[in-house]
Amino acid sequence: MPRKLNDIAHRSAAVVAHSGGPTPVINASLLGIVEQARLHSQITALYGARFGIAGILSEDFIDLYQQPDDTLQAVARSPSSALGTSRREVGSAELTQALDVFRAYDIRYFFYNGGNGSMGTAHQIQSMADAAGYDLQVIGIPKTIDNDLLETDHTPGYASTARFFASAVRDIGADNRALPGQVEFIEILGRNVGWLAAATSLARARHDDAPHLIYFPEQRLPVDKLLSDVERVFRRLNRCVVSVCEGQLDENGEPFGADVRSGSRGNLAMNLAHRLALLVMERLKIRARSEKPGLLGRACTACISDTDWNEARHCGQAAVAAAIEGERGKMVTLLRGSGAEYAAETGLTSLDRVAFFERPFPAEWRNQDGNDVLPQFHGYAAPLVGTIEAHGALVDARVSKSRNTLHSEK
Amino acid sequence: MPRKLNDIAHRSAAVVAHSGGPTPVINASLLGIVEQARLHSQITALYGARFGIAGILSEDFIDLYQQPDDTLQAVARSPSSALGTSRREVGSAELTQALDVFRAYDIRYFFYNGGNGSMGTAHQIQSMADAAGYDLQVIGIPKTIDNDLLETDHTPGYASTARFFASAVRDIGADNRALPGQVEFIEILGRNVGWLAAATSLARARHDDAPHLIYFPEQRLPVDKLLSDVERVFRRLNRCVVSVCEGQLDENGEPFGADVRSGSRGNLAMNLAHRLALLVMERLKIRARSEKPGLLGRACTACISDTDWNEARHCGQAAVAAAIEGERGKMVTLLRGSGAEYAAETGLTSLDRVAFFERPFPAEWRNQDGNDVLPQFHGYAAPLVGTIEAHGALVDARVSKSRNTLHSEK
Repeated sequence: MPRKLNDIAHRSAAVVAHSGGPTPVINASLLGIVEQARLHSQITALYGARFGIAGILSEDFIDLYQQPDDTLQAVARSPSSALGTSRREVGSAELTQALDVFRAYDIRYFFYNGGNGSMGTAHQIQSMADAAGYDLQVIGIPKTIDNDLLETDHTPGYASTARFFASAVRDIGADNRALPGQVEFIEILGRNVGWLAAATSLARARHDDAPHLIYFPEQRLPVDKLLSDVERVFRRLNRCVVSVCEGQLDENGEPFGADVRSGSRGNLAMNLAHRLALLVMERLKIRARSEKPGLLGRACTACISDTDWNEARHCGQAAVAAAIEGERGKMVTLLRGSGAEYAAETGLTSLDRVAFFERPFPAEWRNQDGNDVLPQFHGYAAPLVGTIEAHGALVDARVSKSRNTLHSEK
Repeated sequence: MPRKLNDIAHRSAAVVAHSGGPTPVINASLLGIVEQARLHSQITALYGARFGIAGILSEDFIDLYQQPDDTLQAVARSPSSALGTSRREVGSAELTQALDVFRAYDIRYFFYNGGNGSMGTAHQIQSMADAAGYDLQVIGIPKTIDNDLLETDHTPGYASTARFFASAVRDIGADNRALPGQVEFIEILGRNVGWLAAATSLARARHDDAPHLIYFPEQRLPVDKLLSDVERVFRRLNRCVVSVCEGQLDENGEPFGADVRSGSRGNLAMNLAHRLALLVMERLKIRARSEKPGLLGRACTACISDTDWNEARHCGQAAVAAAIEGERGKMVTLLRGSGAEYAAETGLTSLDRVAFFERPFPAEWRNQDGNDVLPQFHGYAAPLVGTIEAHGALVDARVSKSRNTLHSEK
């Protein structure tokens, strides 16, 4: 890409801010930003905004150049956001105020780590700075467990959360196999998209392993279909594990009678899987329960995917490298290589191509019944999530029921 | 202990059965049984009953001597019960039938792996065999995530489940710290005893780390006390994480309006933490949510404690060794050494000293407010659970808010 004269990097300060829900690897992106920034004398100071855009508005900054190496490494290996993050919706008055702060601190680089809504905010800040003649380079770094951003093969944070839910469903499935006679609903993170629910299929080893049913919030789920699906599995196996998203809606577009609370992104069902367990008990007279690992899914230290961690770090590095190259108004993307072995490299796309769009789970990767994935999805997701070891299983060496024979042999 | 003549080991078959909920390490006890039995020619056959006592009654046995070593090792490293288990309550008619099966297969050793109820059953079988003049040696192997057995320092299965919940509360606590402004209830396994809830304190590293409140089902929790505790923490930190057991009851002995289902051990609340979140939202007007990892807590592959695993294996070995020594009607126990460094060895106790008793969390390890543990508990539990690494945290190098100064320096 030809470099425009006014794109040549300034010697000035940079700020990093997190936005939206934390992920298991957003701190790895932070490490990538700091280590890359340190290589470039143009970035004279590197500030971390506390609690996202709120930290910019209140000028609550941590000096990221003063962080010892071992601190940064320990932070990078920890889930959640070490800077703090925010779901605050900001209007143009607040963005104008943010630009004033940037001017005051001579901040000319803004690294914004978030999802599609945050990329919209990033785009808006870039446009406002351009219009005001303030030379600012805004670079977005993708982050969402939902994997719902356009223009990137996948998003940092998805694979680790997927690894958690795949492992959790494997483990709970083993419990259900050992103590059968009931239906288990496992509530998976995901309001509008089924990427994480789909991933719970990744740890199946035996043909009758959990999950036995997977639903996708992109499709409404009629109550009667759910009940007939569950009953069919239960009659066959005397057990049943169902992966269902927190945002699943029934045929009326309602959350199965769940309690809701209002959130930054509309109403959220608080106890969806529990409602489904009650439905199964009432209507099918089968024992049922539900588990809701909830936010542990996006924060689990033990389930961080190596690929995810490395890519999150690379995305942070690439954001700084792009800024030094003079880029602005862009988001870092991950591009998958076409070789047989999985490989990915970073790319760039315009913020306005990502902002506010949502990528649903592809219909062509769902089975016809709408209750499982197709193998193509595994080709896509397995290299990201990494190997999830199968549980051991005893060899089925049954002792013959020859009671009398044994008796007479004595 | 002097060996009685009729206690000298027979050459005959042995059976192993699991009882009650699975644990992360019950399969390690199974490994211990198999490897020890293989050393003794007196145990001519080793059968695993499928799904507990039901497998004995239906003569559904797996030949454990036919299991390859690598299979046993893989099984031992996997949570849940590889044999299958059962919560079935058995009466004396069924126990008589079980004895008939033992006779038919010349089973003279019975290894029963379960909790206090199961030790009651084991005791009953031993008594019935003795009364019938059938020479049977029953040895109990302790297993319960609840840690509520008498006569043993702790129970296999507790430490791994404790490790899961401590890690989960650390991780969810980090999420709550990064995205504050709400109260998090985390539902912990435990109907009657607070051993697991107490363990969620083990991963705290900073003074304001989660959990901020821990409740014990041994004590009723008045709604107003809960709300005032939560409000106080929230006003101070703008966040709050609460560890609460699934079996917690309010001042009226009710589960805070939760939905209940009837189980083998009475009514079970299905959504207790969710009810508490609703209470906080309604009464305190503070955002709240709940997480319920549920059965993942007793099945999590990633959180198995090394100490727990090793001890579970040793308990299996010790059960076989005791039988070969001529013991009967006993349960294996774990005895803690008195040295500064943690060490434990196995012992034996009479089944009737364990059967049906329940060991509550000690009142002297709770604080006066009844909402946290005292340090003595950590001395007890930390060596069992093992080190849980603290999350990294940024050095608090705040950038001074000298906007005008910075401006004038340019």
